[in-house]
Amino acid sequence: MSAAPVVDIALVHHPVVDKNGKLVTTAVTNIDIHDIARSARTYGVRRFFVVTPVEASRALARRIIEHWETGFGATYNANRKDALSLVRLAPDLDGAIAEVELETGSRPKLVVTSARPAADALSFAGYRELLAGDPAPHLILFGTGWGLADSLLQRADHRIEPIAPGGYNHLSVRAAAAVILDRVLGPR
Amino acid sequence: MSAAPVVDIALVHHPVVDKNGKLVTTAVTNIDIHDIARSARTYGVRRFFVVTPVEASRALARRIIEHWETGFGATYNANRKDALSLVRLAPDLDGAIAEVELETGSRPKLVVTSARPAADALSFAGYRELLAGDPAPHLILFGTGWGLADSLLQRADHRIEPIAPGGYNHLSVRAAAAVILDRVLGPR
Repeated sequence: MSAAPVVDIALVHHPVVDKNGKLVTTAVTNIDIHDIARSARTYGVRRFFVVTPVEASRALARRIIEHWETGFGATYNANRKDALSLVRLAPDLDGAIAEVELETGSRPKLVVTSARPAADALSFAGYRELLAGDPAPHLILFGTGWGLADSLLQRADHRIEPIAPGGYNHLSVRAAAAVILDRVLGPR
Repeated sequence: MSAAPVVDIALVHHPVVDKNGKLVTTAVTNIDIHDIARSARTYGVRRFFVVTPVEASRALARRIIEHWETGFGATYNANRKDALSLVRLAPDLDGAIAEVELETGSRPKLVVTSARPAADALSFAGYRELLAGDPAPHLILFGTGWGLADSLLQRADHRIEPIAPGGYNHLSVRAAAAVILDRVLGPR
C-alpha cells in the first residue's frame, strides 16, 4: 500500500483573468484565507499558499494569520489556529513551488482546476487514482476572479474536469475549493 | 424511475448556538447569501431560504437580492442573477416550511446537518438513497454560528452524519453547504 498523498494548494491572485478575459491581479480577502484554510485542514492538505505579487496584500494576510496564531485569536479559537497554521505566503507560483521543493525534497506536480472544459481534463475519479499512485507532492491551483490565466493552465501537469460538466459552473472559489478537496481527498 | 428529488435549503440565523452553547441570533452576511445561492443553483436546489427573525436583516438581504435581480447587477452578471433568484426570506423555520408547502403542495421533510455525531445519523450514501425514493420535498437546514439549536435538531425527520466523522469538523457554513450539496445531489 502506498503512503497518503502529499497535497498542497495555492490560491492564485495573479495572473488570473477578469470577466472579459483580461489579465488582472485580484485583492486578497480575509474570508478566502479563513474558509480555504479550514477546508485545507479538514482534508489533510499540507500547506495552503496565498499567492500574490502585491506586498501590501501579503502584509495584510500575515497580520490575519498572526492574530489567530499568536494573538488574541489563538486562545479564543484554537481550531482556527490549527487551520491558519497551514497558510504560507508567496509572491508568485514559482515561489510556492520552490517552498514545496525545499520542504518536501521533491518538485511538485502542478494541477489546475477550471470551470471551463478541456479535451485533456481528467475526471475526478481518474485524478484521485493517479494521485494515490504518485509519490510526488501535488500542488493544486485555484484561481480567483474569473479563473487562472492561460499561462498557468498551460504549465499544468494535470487538469481536472469542471465540477458541473455542462452545467452551471459559477461556484465561489471558497465553495469550489471545498468541493474539489472533498472529491479528491474525502472519504469514498 | 422516480422523478428528480425536490430539495430546498435554509440557512438558519436563529435559533443557533454560540461557542459556549448559548442560544443566539447571528447576523446575516452578504457573502453567505451569494456563496450558498451559487451552490444551490449549481446543484439544482429549488429554493434557498434565509431564515432570520430580525426584520432589518431581512431588509438588507432583500436589497442585495434586488440589486442583482433587477438593479445594476442583473446586467453586469447574469449568472449571479440566476443564483440569487432562488433566495427567499423567512422570519423563522415555520415560515419557510409554510412557503414550501404552499409552492409544492406537500409538507417538506426536515433534514439537519451537524458537525456533532449522533447515533441516529444517516450516512451520506444512505441519505442519498432515501432521498431518491421519497416523493416528498426535503428541506435541508444549515446552521450559522456554532450550529443549529437542539430544539431544531429534535424536529428533524432525518439527520446526516458529520462531513468528517471523527476528524476536524470546522468548515465554514459556506464550504460545508457546498460539500453537503455535492455529496447529496452531485454526480456519482
